[in-house]
Amino acid sequence: MTEPPTATMSGEGPLAIVCGGGSLPLAVADAVKRSGRRVVLFPFRGWADRAAVESYPHHWIAVGQFGRLRRLARGEGCRDVVLIGTLVRPSLRSIRLDWTTLRLMPRLLRAFRGGDDHLLSEVARIFEDSGFRVVGAHSVAPEILVSVGPLGANRPSARDHSDIARALDLLSTIGRFDVGQAVVVAEGHVLAIEAAEGTDRMLKRIADLRKEGHIHAPTGVGVLVKAPKPQQDQRVDLPAIGPATVEGVARAGLAGLAVVAGSAIVAEPEEVVRRADAAKIFVAGVPHATSP
Amino acid sequence: MTEPPTATMSGEGPLAIVCGGGSLPLAVADAVKRSGRRVVLFPFRGWADRAAVESYPHHWIAVGQFGRLRRLARGEGCRDVVLIGTLVRPSLRSIRLDWTTLRLMPRLLRAFRGGDDHLLSEVARIFEDSGFRVVGAHSVAPEILVSVGPLGANRPSARDHSDIARALDLLSTIGRFDVGQAVVVAEGHVLAIEAAEGTDRMLKRIADLRKEGHIHAPTGVGVLVKAPKPQQDQRVDLPAIGPATVEGVARAGLAGLAVVAGSAIVAEPEEVVRRADAAKIFVAGVPHATSP
Repeated sequence: MTEPPTATMSGEGPLAIVCGGGSLPLAVADAVKRSGRRVVLFPFRGWADRAAVESYPHHWIAVGQFGRLRRLARGEGCRDVVLIGTLVRPSLRSIRLDWTTLRLMPRLLRAFRGGDDHLLSEVARIFEDSGFRVVGAHSVAPEILVSVGPLGANRPSARDHSDIARALDLLSTIGRFDVGQAVVVAEGHVLAIEAAEGTDRMLKRIADLRKEGHIHAPTGVGVLVKAPKPQQDQRVDLPAIGPATVEGVARAGLAGLAVVAGSAIVAEPEEVVRRADAAKIFVAGVPHATSP
Repeated sequence: MTEPPTATMSGEGPLAIVCGGGSLPLAVADAVKRSGRRVVLFPFRGWADRAAVESYPHHWIAVGQFGRLRRLARGEGCRDVVLIGTLVRPSLRSIRLDWTTLRLMPRLLRAFRGGDDHLLSEVARIFEDSGFRVVGAHSVAPEILVSVGPLGANRPSARDHSDIARALDLLSTIGRFDVGQAVVVAEGHVLAIEAAEGTDRMLKRIADLRKEGHIHAPTGVGVLVKAPKPQQDQRVDLPAIGPATVEGVARAGLAGLAVVAGSAIVAEPEEVVRRADAAKIFVAGVPHATSP
């Protein structure tokens, strides 16, 4: 941690985007490029999309190569770093530990035990300890943030708004337990609370329960609501929705999905709207405090 | 609802046990018989165990035959009724609606929409409106209640107690949302909250997540905690554990399971202890407010 940055950085300079899987990293890269800023990608081998990455200056990295990443990012003159994209628990085989990362292992293992949120926050702190500035993807590419109102043709009904309000109430109530970025509520009845399983798996559960006759609310009733956790480091972990979320909501037989406006990001918004309209479900940004 | 009871009941009299599936109904029947009270079973076709029921006076009923059940229970001179056993959402084919039930359908449908808890409470009210007294299985067979302390050879560690305290805190925090009779906590981290899926399915989820490497806590760390909801009608719906719960906890790689003593019932306690000891997990009753 003693090496100084290899170059004096200007306030801006090129942006390093450390890319996990999914379409968000490239959406962010495209948005930043449009704004006129140079972008250098650091895609994770096994997660980032090879073809998409090719159109940008990039350096492939493996999980565990923080030393390599730090050296290359400094070499590119990057001070600002965005961490974005999914990185489902990597297999041990895919991990390549370099010396820098090895020295950081005690910190990382402690954070690992605390769950993904703690791990991401700790990784952000590690970047900052090396002189980088970790910035939120939404602060360099504000167009990926969901704003207030419907994204497609459908709008939440009065009953949906009432379910949304109950869901937000529940999410803020359990916030101090560092759990539950998402819940499903139908006619005031809480059907599912997300913990370690993730949103897609939770929606699959609702679809399964419905098939087996365990969901009392009729099809087309009920909402998925996602909100950031109070302690969440919004630079590295905002709730995200994308086409897969819309498909999951449709298969679960819900009326739609709502996220807290300004605190959730959307991947492939055009595709999200197309699928939501086709499935006749709403996708909406709502203010944090909503009422029926 | 205008027919009077066909006989004047004494304070005690025979006990009607309306039996769903699982081993609890017969455990209750055996306990009540041992206490010297006559028992008449009303097993649900398709759920109750045919062989087990044969050793008691019994009348088979179908879901939807409240009129028949009421007539037969009165004929047997039963005033007290216990409702016990699982009744996973019956298929439409298995339902036989009689006129009495048909007239009750608006009430039942309203309750059905509110979830199982509301449905069960409403069914209890319907029994009481017909002159029956709905009593909790644990009040006629107190031996099925879990008391404070370990049930088998293993005891919760200090870390387990800390996880149990966190779980109870979470369960009481979300109580007003009428959700979450059970949660899984490991090293202070909330891994799962039960809503519509039920405990067995929630434990299966933890086992699956662990297999896929999404659970950070090592095997043998983490607890399942079950507690009654604050609004729960304890006469008809106490949290229950049994051999299947123990198997689920073992497969999920947890240290053990805790329930609120005096507010949870155990089916087949000997089998629960045998399997818990074999799997080296603890099963414990804890006071409602516990501390590390």
